[in-house]
Amino acid sequence: MAGNSFGTLFRFTTFGESHGPAIGCIVDGVPPRLPLDEAFIQPYLDRRKPGQSKYVTQRRESDTVEILSGTFEGLTTGSPVMLLIRNEDQRSKDYGDIKDKFRPGHADYTYQAKYGIRDYRGGGRSSARETASRVAAGAIARRVLDLAPAPVTIRACMVQMGPHKVDRSRWDWDAVDGNPFFCPDPVAAEQWAEYLDGVRKAGSSTGAVIEVVASGVPVGWGDPIYDKLDGDLARAMMTINAVKGVEIGAGFAAAELSGEDNADEMRMGPDGKPVFLSNMAGGILGGISTGQDIVVRFAVKPTSSILTPRRTIDVHGAETDILTKGRHDPCVGIRAVPVGEAMMACVLADHFLRHRALVGG
Amino acid sequence: MAGNSFGTLFRFTTFGESHGPAIGCIVDGVPPRLPLDEAFIQPYLDRRKPGQSKYVTQRRESDTVEILSGTFEGLTTGSPVMLLIRNEDQRSKDYGDIKDKFRPGHADYTYQAKYGIRDYRGGGRSSARETASRVAAGAIARRVLDLAPAPVTIRACMVQMGPHKVDRSRWDWDAVDGNPFFCPDPVAAEQWAEYLDGVRKAGSSTGAVIEVVASGVPVGWGDPIYDKLDGDLARAMMTINAVKGVEIGAGFAAAELSGEDNADEMRMGPDGKPVFLSNMAGGILGGISTGQDIVVRFAVKPTSSILTPRRTIDVHGAETDILTKGRHDPCVGIRAVPVGEAMMACVLADHFLRHRALVGG
Amino acid sequence: MAGNSFGTLFRFTTFGESHGPAIGCIVDGVPPRLPLDEAFIQPYLDRRKPGQSKYVTQRRESDTVEILSGTFEGLTTGSPVMLLIRNEDQRSKDYGDIKDKFRPGHADYTYQAKYGIRDYRGGGRSSARETASRVAAGAIARRVLDLAPAPVTIRACMVQMGPHKVDRSRWDWDAVDGNPFFCPDPVAAEQWAEYLDGVRKAGSSTGAVIEVVASGVPVGWGDPIYDKLDGDLARAMMTINAVKGVEIGAGFAAAELSGEDNADEMRMGPDGKPVFLSNMAGGILGGISTGQDIVVRFAVKPTSSILTPRRTIDVHGAETDILTKGRHDPCVGIRAVPVGEAMMACVLADHFLRHRALVGG
Amino acid sequence: MAGNSFGTLFRFTTFGESHGPAIGCIVDGVPPRLPLDEAFIQPYLDRRKPGQSKYVTQRRESDTVEILSGTFEGLTTGSPVMLLIRNEDQRSKDYGDIKDKFRPGHADYTYQAKYGIRDYRGGGRSSARETASRVAAGAIARRVLDLAPAPVTIRACMVQMGPHKVDRSRWDWDAVDGNPFFCPDPVAAEQWAEYLDGVRKAGSSTGAVIEVVASGVPVGWGDPIYDKLDGDLARAMMTINAVKGVEIGAGFAAAELSGEDNADEMRMGPDGKPVFLSNMAGGILGGISTGQDIVVRFAVKPTSSILTPRRTIDVHGAETDILTKGRHDPCVGIRAVPVGEAMMACVLADHFLRHRALVGG
Repeated sequence: MAGNSFGTLFRFTTFGESHGPAIGCIVDGVPPRLPLDEAFIQPYLDRRKPGQSKYVTQRRESDTVEILSGTFEGLTTGSPVMLLIRNEDQRSKDYGDIKDKFRPGHADYTYQAKYGIRDYRGGGRSSARETASRVAAGAIARRVLDLAPAPVTIRACMVQMGPHKVDRSRWDWDAVDGNPFFCPDPVAAEQWAEYLDGVRKAGSSTGAVIEVVASGVPVGWGDPIYDKLDGDLARAMMTINAVKGVEIGAGFAAAELSGEDNADEMRMGPDGKPVFLSNMAGGILGGISTGQDIVVRFAVKPTSSILTPRRTIDVHGAETDILTKGRHDPCVGIRAVPVGEAMMACVLADHFLRHRALVGG
Repeated sequence: MAGNSFGTLFRFTTFGESHGPAIGCIVDGVPPRLPLDEAFIQPYLDRRKPGQSKYVTQRRESDTVEILSGTFEGLTTGSPVMLLIRNEDQRSKDYGDIKDKFRPGHADYTYQAKYGIRDYRGGGRSSARETASRVAAGAIARRVLDLAPAPVTIRACMVQMGPHKVDRSRWDWDAVDGNPFFCPDPVAAEQWAEYLDGVRKAGSSTGAVIEVVASGVPVGWGDPIYDKLDGDLARAMMTINAVKGVEIGAGFAAAELSGEDNADEMRMGPDGKPVFLSNMAGGILGGISTGQDIVVRFAVKPTSSILTPRRTIDVHGAETDILTKGRHDPCVGIRAVPVGEAMMACVLADHFLRHRALVGG
Repeated sequence: MAGNSFGTLFRFTTFGESHGPAIGCIVDGVPPRLPLDEAFIQPYLDRRKPGQSKYVTQRRESDTVEILSGTFEGLTTGSPVMLLIRNEDQRSKDYGDIKDKFRPGHADYTYQAKYGIRDYRGGGRSSARETASRVAAGAIARRVLDLAPAPVTIRACMVQMGPHKVDRSRWDWDAVDGNPFFCPDPVAAEQWAEYLDGVRKAGSSTGAVIEVVASGVPVGWGDPIYDKLDGDLARAMMTINAVKGVEIGAGFAAAELSGEDNADEMRMGPDGKPVFLSNMAGGILGGISTGQDIVVRFAVKPTSSILTPRRTIDVHGAETDILTKGRHDPCVGIRAVPVGEAMMACVLADHFLRHRALVGG
Repeated sequence: MAGNSFGTLFRFTTFGESHGPAIGCIVDGVPPRLPLDEAFIQPYLDRRKPGQSKYVTQRRESDTVEILSGTFEGLTTGSPVMLLIRNEDQRSKDYGDIKDKFRPGHADYTYQAKYGIRDYRGGGRSSARETASRVAAGAIARRVLDLAPAPVTIRACMVQMGPHKVDRSRWDWDAVDGNPFFCPDPVAAEQWAEYLDGVRKAGSSTGAVIEVVASGVPVGWGDPIYDKLDGDLARAMMTINAVKGVEIGAGFAAAELSGEDNADEMRMGPDGKPVFLSNMAGGILGGISTGQDIVVRFAVKPTSSILTPRRTIDVHGAETDILTKGRHDPCVGIRAVPVGEAMMACVLADHFLRHRALVGG
C-alpha cells in the first residue's frame, strides 16, 4: 500500500520505470467469462503511444501489450490479469545533466528527498510512461462495463490548449480522432496546430484542459460519503501526471452561479423516466450518479521539459541552470486524453461492481 | 467499505443522519501519548457550528463532542478514539413536502434510486451536518501533526463569494476570524456582507471558492502513483458537500501558462536549504510535498435549498414544483472553510504516518 | 487502519475499553431495506453477556444495544449502522495491583511496551468485553445473509472443555442452549459442570475448543488466493481473545490421513445436485465454499486471571508476584461460543457481497 | 480486491497460472535503499522448487526470477518491485481427464461453480505453483526486516509427517537442510524417508505439520484488535495451498491446560530486560509480540492427486471415477516449509512498518 494500486473491487497495481525493461500492471477483480485478448486492448494503447505526430514525443515505443495471466481460451477466468509492456526505446545516451540536477516542475527533487535515491533515467517511476498501464487497465474496465444494464460510452477530448478554448457550438465528437489533438472543434484544431507549432519551435510548452464524458451510466452508482463517485474521479484524474485541477459539471463556474441557475430541474420524460432540464451537476448528486452524462474536466500544466534554461540546484546543493533536451511533448495534455478516458472507465467499473455488491442487480 | 471511511493509516469512519439521535466518528490509527480531551476538539467544532451569524443556518446545535474511548488520563492510548456529537435541534415539523418530492441539486433523487429508501428528514445521511464529524477528526489529525519534525500550520479562508474575489494584495490571515465569511481581505468582507444580504433576502443562494494552505510540511510526504498527496487532497475536498472543483497551486490557470512561467525555479536559501522562486506547483511535485506551502482551492456550488420554486418530480413520478423553506445557509461555502482545514489535516496526518512507515524518522 | 476494522465490503469498526463509558461499533456496507431494530440484535448479546451462570464472570452488564444511525422506520438505509453499548458495572475499586504489575497471559506487558501507556482498568482495550461489539455486528451480518439464495444457518457449540471432549454420537444441536456451556452432548455437559466447579473452587481456570458450523452456504463463496474463505475465517477466529488455534474440517488430523481417506468423493444427489460422500474439507476447497457445511474449530486457552499467585514483574522492572482477584470466567471459552458464531456470520456476509459483486446474482 | 494481494503496508499482489507463460508478483511498500538483486532472491526459490528429490514433483522448473522494476544500481528505490518467473515445463500433454472431471480434494469443482470457467491445466490459478511468488516476496520481506532494531531470524521445518512426529529432544536446526524433508530431527528424517517411499510407491500421499519460528522480533509488533499478529499469521498460513489448521504457541493443546500451567511467568533477565519462564503464548499476547520466539504451526493435508481411483462427477453431472497421473508430491507439506517461512517474513515486515508508522522508531 505504498500507492501503486487504484480501485477497490476493480483494482489494478502498476509497476515499472521509464527506462527499465518493462512496465505493466496486474488487474484484479475482473469478472469471469468476459472476452479479452491483446487485440482488444492494443487499440487503446495505440491512441496514447508516442511518436504519432510531430506534436508529441518522438520516442519510439510500439507499446505492445502481452497478457500473461487471467484468461483462458479468450475469456477472463476471474483470476488476476497481468499485462506486460516492454520498453523498447530506452536510448543509451548520457544522462549526465539530469543525473545530478533537479529539473524544475519535475519530481526529481521530491523523489530524491523522499527516497534518498532516484532512477533519474527519463524520470524513472515518475515518468508519464506509467500512464500506458492505466490505459491498458482501462481497456479491461470497459469490458467490465459491458456487464452494465445499458451500454456505457466513455469519450474524452481536449477543450482548451494554452489560452485557446474550443467553441462548444461547433462540438463534434466525430472530429476528435480527425486531428492530432483530440479536439472536438475542427476549426479550433487548425488554430491549435499553428499555435503549437510556434510553441514547439520556441522550445517551450503549453498546458491544456481535457474533458471526459461518460454517457449511459445508470442512476445509482457511487458510495457516499468518502467514496463518492466525484471524489473518486477527482483522485483518479489528479493522479495523472501534470494534472493540477479537476472539476465536475459546472465546476469552478458553479461558484458564480445563483441557486436558481444551478438547480437542475426535473420533469418526466416521454419514456416515463425522469429527465433533467440541465446538467450543472455533471451527472452526480450526493456522490451518486444521476443517470445524466458524467462530465469531468481536468487541467494539465505545460510540459516541464523545455529548451529554455531554468535556474535550479543539483544534488550537491550547488546552484546551476538546466535545459532539457530530448524527446518531449510540447503539450503533454494531448496524450492525457486517452488516459483520462481510461481512468473514468476504471472508476466506473469499480463502482458498478460495488453497487452490484450492495444492492444486487 | 461502503464509503464511510477516510484515510489509510490515520483513518476515520463516520456515521449519523441529520435528524437521528447523534452523529460522530471512530478515529483509528492515532499514535499513543498525545494530549487529547474534549476541550481541545471543541473550538474547531465551534468554528463550524450553525447559528453563529445571520449568514448561516439558524439551526441551534451546540455540537458538543464527547470522547467515548481511546484516551486515558488525558492522553491517547493508541486505541480507537470514538467521538460522539448528539443532535439537539431536530425540529418535529412536518416534512410532508420533502418527504415525497426530490429537491433539485440535493441527493434526494439519487439516494432514493440507489437504496430504494431514504431518510428524508433534513437530507438524512447526505446532510452537510456530517461534516461536523470531519472537523472533529481533523482536530485529532492536528494533534498527530504535532509529531512532525517541524510545526505544520493549516489555515483556510474564502477567496471568492459568487462572482466577487478577494484582492490578494490585501491578504491578511489575521483578518479571517474577524468577519463572518472567513475572508482574508477585510474590504472584500464588507462587500460580501452587502452582497449576501441581498442574496438571502431574495431567498436565493450563492457559491464560493475556498483556499486551504498548509505551511511547514517537510519535503517528502506523499505516495506516488495513486496515493499522491494531491490526488488524496482532491478526493478529500471533492467529498465535502456541494464541492464541484478542486485545484492545486496554479490549478486551472496552469493550462494557460508557458513551460517557462510554470517552472518553479530553485536556488539555495541562506540557511543552506533549497528554496523555490515561485509556487505554481502548490507545494506538490510528482505527488510528493516540496517543502513549500501546500495550496488547495475548491469550488462550492450555491446552496440548493432556495425559496424560489423549482420544477421537479415526486417519488410517484408526478411532475410538481418545490421551494425549500427552513433554516438554510445562503452561502454554504462559509461553513466549508473549517471543513476544508480539517480534511487537509487528515490527509497530512495520514501521509505523515505513511512516510514514517516507509523511511522511518 | 490501526487494526480495529474487520471485513472488506461488510465491514465493522469497533471501539471502547472495558471500563470506559461505552463500547460499540460502526457497521458499514449494510445493504438497504433490511428489517433491523434493537430487538433483533439484543438476543444475540444476551447469549454472550456476563453473569448468566456461576460459571462465568459475575460482572453485571445488561449489554443493552442502541442503534444510533443507519435505519429508518425499521429498515436499513444503506448508511452506516452505529451500535452503542454502555458500560454499566465498572466497579470503582482499587486497581492498585494490576495498575503496576503485568498479569501473565494478559496483554498488559505488550500494550505497555508497544504504546508506552495503558488503560489498566479491566484490561482496557484488550478486554474480552470488546467481543460484545462483534456479536452485535454479527447480528446484522445474519440479516445480510437473509439475502442469500437459500437460508444460511450458523451455530456454534463447545466440543471440549479442558481434557474432556464431547461424544459426537450424542450430538444434539437442540441441547446446546439447555446447559450453561453451549454443549451439544447433554451427558458431557453434566460432567463439565462438575469439572468446572472444581476448577472454579480451586481458583484455577481451563481451556476449551469451540466448533462453529455454517449450513446452507451455496457453492462459490470465497476469493482466492489471499482472501480465501478459510483464510478469512482463520483470521476471524484467531483474533477472538484467548484463541490459540484454528482448524477447518479435518484440521490438524488431516496431517495423519492418507490421500485416499482425505478425498471427499462426489456423486450426484437425488435432486440432481452434486453431493459429497464425506466432509474432510470442512466445506471449503481452494478457498471457495463447496456447498457442504462449513466447519471451523478454535482452541481457547484457559483464563489468565487466576487466584494462584504467579511470578511477574512490574512496570518499574521489579520482580514480584500477582494473583488476580475479581470477577472472572473460569472457562472463558464458554462466552466465546456466540462470538465464534458472530465472526462466522460476518465473514460469510462479506463474502456473499463480494461474490455478488464479481459474478452478480 | 478480488483476493490476490497480501499485506497492508508491505503488500504484494500475485498473478499467474500453473500452465500459463509466467507467474510472479508486484511487491509494493518496499523501503528505499535496500540492497536487492536476483541473486539475493534466487536461493529462497531454489529451496522450494520442484524436482529436488524423489519425494517431490518431478516437474522441471528452474524458477528463475527476474526483477523488472523497483531497483536502481542494486538498491530498492521505494517504487514497486516486479518479480517475474517464467513457466518452463508446461507439458503439452492431453488434459482430457481433468478437463472434464472434478478431482476430489482439488479446487476444480469450486472454481467451475464460482466462475463458470476454469483453466484446468495443472489446476490453473489454484495450483501450488503460485507459492513461488510468495517465496520471492518473502525474500524481499527479509530485506525489509534488516531495518528492524535487531536481527530477525525466520526458520521453518517439518515436525510431523503423517502420524510420525519429531522427537523434540533431538531438535537441531542445523539438520533441517541436511535431509529432503526439512526435518530438524535426523533420526525422524530417516524414518520418514522409509515411510514416504512406501506412500509414494503405493500411489498414495500423506499430510504433515510445519513449524515456523521467528526469533529476534522485538516486543511491540502487531495491531489489535483485528490485525493482531496472530490473526494475520493465521490468515497467512491458512491461505497456503492444502493447509487445514494453524496454531500459535501451545495451540490446541492450550485447551487442556490449567491457567497455572498456561501462564508464562516473568522475571528480570541478567541484562535488565524482562524474560519469560515459558512460551505457551508462542510469542504473542493480545495480538502483540512479546519479544519471545514467535511459534506457528500449520497442518497440511495429504496431496489430493493420487493414483488410487476416487469416485467423482464430471462437468456434465455424470458420475465417474478419476485417478490422477502426473508429476505430484507424495507429501506436499515438504515444499510448504519455505512457503511458511516466506509468509512469516511478509507478515512481520508488514507489522514492522505498521509499528514504525504508529510509534516511530
